[in-house]
Amino acid sequence: MLKNDLFLRALKGQNVARPPVWMMRQAGRYLPEFMEIKKKYDFFTRCRTPELASEITIQPIRRFGMDAAVLFSDILVIPQAMNVEVQMKPDFGPYLPKPIRTQRDVDNVIVPDIHSELNYVYQAIQASKEKLDNEIPLIGFAGSPWTLLCYMVQGQGSKTFDKAKEFCFTNPSGAHELLQKLTDTTIEYLKAKINAGVDAVQIFDSWGGLLSPTDYQEFSWKYIQQIIDAVKNHAPIIVFGKGCWFALGEMSKSGASALGVDWTCSARNARYLSGGNITLQGNLDPSRLFSSPSDIKKMVNEMINDFGKDKYIVNLGHGILPNIPLDNVKAFIDAVKEYKS
Amino acid sequence: MLKNDLFLRALKGQNVARPPVWMMRQAGRYLPEFMEIKKKYDFFTRCRTPELASEITIQPIRRFGMDAAVLFSDILVIPQAMNVEVQMKPDFGPYLPKPIRTQRDVDNVIVPDIHSELNYVYQAIQASKEKLDNEIPLIGFAGSPWTLLCYMVQGQGSKTFDKAKEFCFTNPSGAHELLQKLTDTTIEYLKAKINAGVDAVQIFDSWGGLLSPTDYQEFSWKYIQQIIDAVKNHAPIIVFGKGCWFALGEMSKSGASALGVDWTCSARNARYLSGGNITLQGNLDPSRLFSSPSDIKKMVNEMINDFGKDKYIVNLGHGILPNIPLDNVKAFIDAVKEYKS
Repeated sequence: MLKNDLFLRALKGQNVARPPVWMMRQAGRYLPEFMEIKKKYDFFTRCRTPELASEITIQPIRRFGMDAAVLFSDILVIPQAMNVEVQMKPDFGPYLPKPIRTQRDVDNVIVPDIHSELNYVYQAIQASKEKLDNEIPLIGFAGSPWTLLCYMVQGQGSKTFDKAKEFCFTNPSGAHELLQKLTDTTIEYLKAKINAGVDAVQIFDSWGGLLSPTDYQEFSWKYIQQIIDAVKNHAPIIVFGKGCWFALGEMSKSGASALGVDWTCSARNARYLSGGNITLQGNLDPSRLFSSPSDIKKMVNEMINDFGKDKYIVNLGHGILPNIPLDNVKAFIDAVKEYKS
Repeated sequence: MLKNDLFLRALKGQNVARPPVWMMRQAGRYLPEFMEIKKKYDFFTRCRTPELASEITIQPIRRFGMDAAVLFSDILVIPQAMNVEVQMKPDFGPYLPKPIRTQRDVDNVIVPDIHSELNYVYQAIQASKEKLDNEIPLIGFAGSPWTLLCYMVQGQGSKTFDKAKEFCFTNPSGAHELLQKLTDTTIEYLKAKINAGVDAVQIFDSWGGLLSPTDYQEFSWKYIQQIIDAVKNHAPIIVFGKGCWFALGEMSKSGASALGVDWTCSARNARYLSGGNITLQGNLDPSRLFSSPSDIKKMVNEMINDFGKDKYIVNLGHGILPNIPLDNVKAFIDAVKEYKS
């Protein structure tokens, strides 16, 4: 039994004295103790060494006491396991030297035995659970198939992922083949993570908002729905589609336990578009953590009042930025803990 | 009198046999005749030489016969005129070597005599009008103050414009001072363009969608509203806020003649959010021009049916991409001309 089950209660839609809080990318570069580890070990060594990954996972909890931990990992471990080389270049981000551009490239992508291939992830989960000692739940995550395709075809980050979209719109059957392979792999991966001990999972559809509503259905949502169908009876699932306000209605009927929203969607719009009954998670603009601690506390209070304390998980609208002052993070977390309805 | 006034009729909300069509960035890199000029002259030479700018402006009209021309220029001529150095680096985009980061930087930004400073723009307008010979209207444009601030503070393009937002959220008074200078300059600039002969103007708020609805009001919309108030009696004004679906309601009451929408906002959502009465412009995903010509024609027909033929201007949801095949552009334009309701 977890000592603090606020997060799981919110996912079940149960009433709470105050909403739970965590931050996307809370185990990351804004923390000096993370930067110490980053100096010594490269990105994939940190991901692949259970002692390091679990240490990084609990660093923010020790400092700020969030209501949930999120496993330190990366969405691109999936393409890696599927036979696609992924590098993480300093000051550049992900780089895939052989991006998918042809049908032959798609054929070469394998659906791996994800249980053996990503064993280091499950070990990191077990190590994190031990360190958390039943205090708070642990979240595991995966990228959406569409978001993974974006990186696999573009070969790197992008404002528009125009090469990924060109691939989908000129070779839709190849794109769907790749998306199905990604979906099949992700389902097994998330089930294995749940078996290893995560208490909930989140799908990051970071680039879903680059698609029109019609194309979103075709190239992103129908694969996410497959994942929800396969996983929802094993653990609660949160879907975060950045820029996907237009899909909140359909998402709310999907079997997901909660929906993430970004800061462009007001609480009122998010509740309206999602039908008013599903748990929502978000949505302070990560850049707003540059405001003063007192302004941050004020904004968090308004945000909770706007979303309502129930069926709500306080978070940012995307990952925390690297150069946010620690006092500002503390103000964000503390404001939630001090919240009085 | 213009021989083809479909575009102006749509801006007035008058009934038309078919909607008008143009494309953002229609004078650009997808055209071989543009690339010929690009080989010989650098970016700002093209902008600053009226003969070149007017030639580029009418190139797409000669080839495809759109219902409006848009002056070849750049939103960053405004910061340049305001004493901020702007370079256009090949394969990189805009680069501002001395970005605005301090109050002193803001103080150094001048509100120029835009009539003498950007004389080359007005000459390019006159030359374009002569070449167009009253066939179709000419559109002039400006960036929104917020979008210009993004580049001036960030110093280059960005996915998140995090430095621009950090500046606004840590030094809001400096940000507002800069935004007001930009607004004052832009108002005089657009009036001068209208005096020189453009038939309508468009405000590009390319990065408005990076802000929360509350921050959008504070850092972007209130300045756009000032511009509309000052310009609307001189010429019709179109506001295009990329990602600004959440502001369409307020925008519809602003005095603008039309609102641009991007492809993430369906026709139905756009009509609903904008109150159903204002002319809308958009919104095919520019990447969708990678589809086959027959698919493009089908999508254009559906789009016109969804928006309705009246109070509607067919366009893309953002600028055309450089590597779109000419036959696909032709299919897009022809589909509108062949439209039968």
